[in-house]
Amino acid sequence: MGSLTKLKHFLFGKPIHSKRAQHERLIIVFALAVFASDALSSSAYATEEILHKLQDVAIGGGAWALGYLLPITFALIALLWIVIFSYYQTIQAYPTGGGSYRVSSENLGRVWGLIAAGALLIGYVLTVAVSVSAGASAIVSMLPQTQPYAALMASVAVAVITFFNLRGAKESGAVFAIPTYSYVVLVLGLILWGAFSMMSGGSITPVVDHHTIAEGIKPIGTMALAFFIFKAFAAGCTALTGTEAIADGVLAFEAPEHKNASKTLVWMGIVLMFLVVGISWAATNFGITAMSGGGHGAGGEGYMTVLAQIAAAIFGSATHPGFYITQVATALILVLAANTGFADFPRLSMFVAKDGFLPRQLTTVGDRLVFQNGIITLAVLSILLIIGFNADPHLLIPMYAVGVFLSFTLSQLGMVFWFRKNQRGSWKAWVSGLGSFVCAVVTLLLLFTRFTEGAWIAIAALIIIVMIFFGIKRHYNWLDKRLSIEDEPALTEVDTTVILLVPRLHKGILQAISYSKALTDDTRAIHVTLGRDHTGTIKKEWQAFGEDIPLVILESPYRSLIRPIIDYIDETLREHEGDKDHMVTVIVPQAVPKTWLQRFLHSNIAFSLKLALRSKPNVVVTNVRYFL
Amino acid sequence: MGSLTKLKHFLFGKPIHSKRAQHERLIIVFALAVFASDALSSSAYATEEILHKLQDVAIGGGAWALGYLLPITFALIALLWIVIFSYYQTIQAYPTGGGSYRVSSENLGRVWGLIAAGALLIGYVLTVAVSVSAGASAIVSMLPQTQPYAALMASVAVAVITFFNLRGAKESGAVFAIPTYSYVVLVLGLILWGAFSMMSGGSITPVVDHHTIAEGIKPIGTMALAFFIFKAFAAGCTALTGTEAIADGVLAFEAPEHKNASKTLVWMGIVLMFLVVGISWAATNFGITAMSGGGHGAGGEGYMTVLAQIAAAIFGSATHPGFYITQVATALILVLAANTGFADFPRLSMFVAKDGFLPRQLTTVGDRLVFQNGIITLAVLSILLIIGFNADPHLLIPMYAVGVFLSFTLSQLGMVFWFRKNQRGSWKAWVSGLGSFVCAVVTLLLLFTRFTEGAWIAIAALIIIVMIFFGIKRHYNWLDKRLSIEDEPALTEVDTTVILLVPRLHKGILQAISYSKALTDDTRAIHVTLGRDHTGTIKKEWQAFGEDIPLVILESPYRSLIRPIIDYIDETLREHEGDKDHMVTVIVPQAVPKTWLQRFLHSNIAFSLKLALRSKPNVVVTNVRYFL
Repeated sequence: MGSLTKLKHFLFGKPIHSKRAQHERLIIVFALAVFASDALSSSAYATEEILHKLQDVAIGGGAWALGYLLPITFALIALLWIVIFSYYQTIQAYPTGGGSYRVSSENLGRVWGLIAAGALLIGYVLTVAVSVSAGASAIVSMLPQTQPYAALMASVAVAVITFFNLRGAKESGAVFAIPTYSYVVLVLGLILWGAFSMMSGGSITPVVDHHTIAEGIKPIGTMALAFFIFKAFAAGCTALTGTEAIADGVLAFEAPEHKNASKTLVWMGIVLMFLVVGISWAATNFGITAMSGGGHGAGGEGYMTVLAQIAAAIFGSATHPGFYITQVATALILVLAANTGFADFPRLSMFVAKDGFLPRQLTTVGDRLVFQNGIITLAVLSILLIIGFNADPHLLIPMYAVGVFLSFTLSQLGMVFWFRKNQRGSWKAWVSGLGSFVCAVVTLLLLFTRFTEGAWIAIAALIIIVMIFFGIKRHYNWLDKRLSIEDEPALTEVDTTVILLVPRLHKGILQAISYSKALTDDTRAIHVTLGRDHTGTIKKEWQAFGEDIPLVILESPYRSLIRPIIDYIDETLREHEGDKDHMVTVIVPQAVPKTWLQRFLHSNIAFSLKLALRSKPNVVVTNVRYFL
Repeated sequence: MGSLTKLKHFLFGKPIHSKRAQHERLIIVFALAVFASDALSSSAYATEEILHKLQDVAIGGGAWALGYLLPITFALIALLWIVIFSYYQTIQAYPTGGGSYRVSSENLGRVWGLIAAGALLIGYVLTVAVSVSAGASAIVSMLPQTQPYAALMASVAVAVITFFNLRGAKESGAVFAIPTYSYVVLVLGLILWGAFSMMSGGSITPVVDHHTIAEGIKPIGTMALAFFIFKAFAAGCTALTGTEAIADGVLAFEAPEHKNASKTLVWMGIVLMFLVVGISWAATNFGITAMSGGGHGAGGEGYMTVLAQIAAAIFGSATHPGFYITQVATALILVLAANTGFADFPRLSMFVAKDGFLPRQLTTVGDRLVFQNGIITLAVLSILLIIGFNADPHLLIPMYAVGVFLSFTLSQLGMVFWFRKNQRGSWKAWVSGLGSFVCAVVTLLLLFTRFTEGAWIAIAALIIIVMIFFGIKRHYNWLDKRLSIEDEPALTEVDTTVILLVPRLHKGILQAISYSKALTDDTRAIHVTLGRDHTGTIKKEWQAFGEDIPLVILESPYRSLIRPIIDYIDETLREHEGDKDHMVTVIVPQAVPKTWLQRFLHSNIAFSLKLALRSKPNVVVTNVRYFL
């Protein structure tokens, strides 16, 4: 095992055999942590998103607007259960895993499948960007002095996740369980405590008071009111991102897989429901509003997330140890959520590549080189988003939900067709149909209400990705046609002339000489002379050496090593003109340096030669290496 | 001719034959422009450097200090003529060109030659950095609003020069003549006009008045005075940089070469003398001082060079068209001076590489790849210096002169030994000895007076470069020893097994099959399957194809293409264990995409394979390409 391989194994871990993966099935309590961290972490920012919309009206003198927070949250919960029930059915129908790409492709056709895939790939990038940005917000809420470094912290978090994923760390249930359950227990416990204190007559007041919301009752028209409620509802839909994860990953569960997956799905729904409703209830009852200035932008001095404000209010101050623990747990679950993007992005790419819509080499995810490319692509894109939007979740979220709901819609619509095709109870088809319809409405709602806020970027990116998918497929189709062997394949006989480059006669080239002789009887040794200084020496040495290979001395008037060799190759090819299957093999003896630095002392002519010959057929350049 | 080659020729020009160069000899009037632009351009900043030192005392209340400008300038002129006379002798002794590296190596020995070479290489980097920075200062003097962009302008100038040098533009006499002679005529004409006006009773006053120099006579001790004069003199020595160029390039002159070169050298001395003395005279008589704030650093608001102040004073304002023309001509000659660095750096590298002290591939300067590396190295280093020192010549110059004078010293000392060896008149040896001694004194002076100002950087860089020279030589020596064939070379017979990678059966791999069969009878076709999906197809197709090459199907449990191939290679090598000269040839059919973008759709397994096999002997990886 080479030292590089050792280093690689040390840094990135040993490869994992496919078979072993089957023994690493997850029990429910761990599966919930692994697959639900993404969905549950959405609760950390969903309420805040709704509040931002409500405050637009409330600050203008309509304090009544804030009263809509809980009703809208309940509407979201209804939507959540429709989606969860739809996915519950998907799990029954696809007990080996029913990702949107698969379900849409199989039931709606290629194009819809690819649209779902494109939407998901974009979604994964945003999962990473939004989650680590929200994580950074949690830290900023705790340590206001870190505010200028939010984008830096978020980028570093992505870099760390990237490192562990390059290392090929498996998603270990235990690693996920601790932060996920800490978050759930802390947040739910806090809110229960808050509720209990309030009921027993105590009062909980915000530690920061930033909005002077006039207790007005500024009237508003019916249409305007409807639009206002829709906007707030659409903003809150981000709470549902991540709910599809369990249906994708059924095979990772303990047997009976689909049953355990279904159970986990329902548990996830219950926990998420309590989290979101609890946070919205607390915000309403403690009088907490979202802070403007958009997180880390200008004017966002002393920014605290809504969740942080709730925690601070209940703990009584923003310096209480309990407050710190809550913030750290929040940041950790958000980082885990980002990590799921890293697990899903290369896997979905592989499925799409297998069907020929992404470069084929992505199917060999086992090759570090390929796998790494996917990981690094995801990391770079998400870091660009983080820096571009200054790690402000509030600016990133409008791009996020639209793609997610588009893939929900297609996935559920696919299920409708699946039920009809398989004639498995029409009421189930109706459930999926309802899910699909509701998700479609939400997608359109998101598109209309958030188009200028950033949804257009997601849509533009989606169009580009789908076009790339088809461009790639078109190329592969063209290739298949070009390369297919229709008639009897006419295999012609091939002759080869070996051109052996001899810089000077030394031990290192002996194997290359023997190898050349093994390949053909027509070997010519070539020496390029830049001046006439050494020509005599090499001639004499070659004669003394006494092999029956002719030595050709080429002069180089332009002081280039490459040009005379290429001219000689052309000449050799011309000698055999008409003889279509004569090939020239250029053998370049090459020293393999002992250390990395020594590379610079050894020219790599083979590389320059290949570059110069890249469009010339019937020429093969071969390195025969010797080790120093 | 490939389209890339066409593009290259369009951008960088067609290659130039060595023979043609001999027909492009320069007549004196052009030769002076080409070889003297570097030296003459030094006049644009030398006087200013002296003034900076004098003002250190003058501002403190010793206006008398400024009176030393002309005497120090005359001392510099004496030094100039000593150096010129020494080089005059060098040209006679080395009529084919006597660069410091050659003269020092041949007469003083390797080590001194390499020290001279290292000093010169550093000098070329600084020639570029100082010249374009001084050029930027000329522009800033004309357009004060460009001051914040001085480093940017200087860097862009380097980029433009780099482009033209990558293009391989020959130093055309005419291109050099116009800016060089414009500068000389404008500056000398201006000063004569100024002198004439003054003598005919007119008065010339500076357009900017920035220093309130007390008309005091603050006394100073003898030692302090001496040290002060030495410092000012050392600072002015930068006027002499570039004077060695003619002795290096004798062969570029019209026949009789050495006579014409000698004449040009003397003319250069005369012109440079008038320029430097003229500028110092004008500064003294018009009451012009160097502006503090170090050019473009903080506080350098409205900075004007001394030369610009002289021009403005004579033209009467800094908005006069004549003033603009002078500044542009100054900037142009300075850019030309930078260009000579680009001509000399790769040439000197080639000589050093020929002797084995730099990577050998630098000897093939005709290969674009190598030539480009030298040019780009020079560009990057000089841009780093420009940015690091904010394009301030005053900060860069202390690093500059010490290396130049060190190489002068060694070159002249070498001549002393040359005269003694060749017994050609002892008085000539005395002249060179004087030159060497004076230059040695100046080198030490520079080292002491400017050590902390930046000279230490040049010395540290020199030590590192010389250590690199010897490290490289040691490696090549070790290599020669390792690789030398002492006994009768024992050429063993080599057998090879061909492993042909077959992703699937298509037209593109037909040539590769034929080629494999031409190489050996022991060919095995290898197909790596990631799933079992296509295994049946390839087996059937291969049988239908009917060649007598066995097909081996390798499974890849880790979803890697590379690992199973490597394992199979290991196995094949083990089959022939003990048989030391059995080699495995891996043939990888490779599609050559039509466009650059298509590359991403075709995996390059050969690259990954080579990387994985880089430390395994007896394996050769070969691409057989097919064109789409």
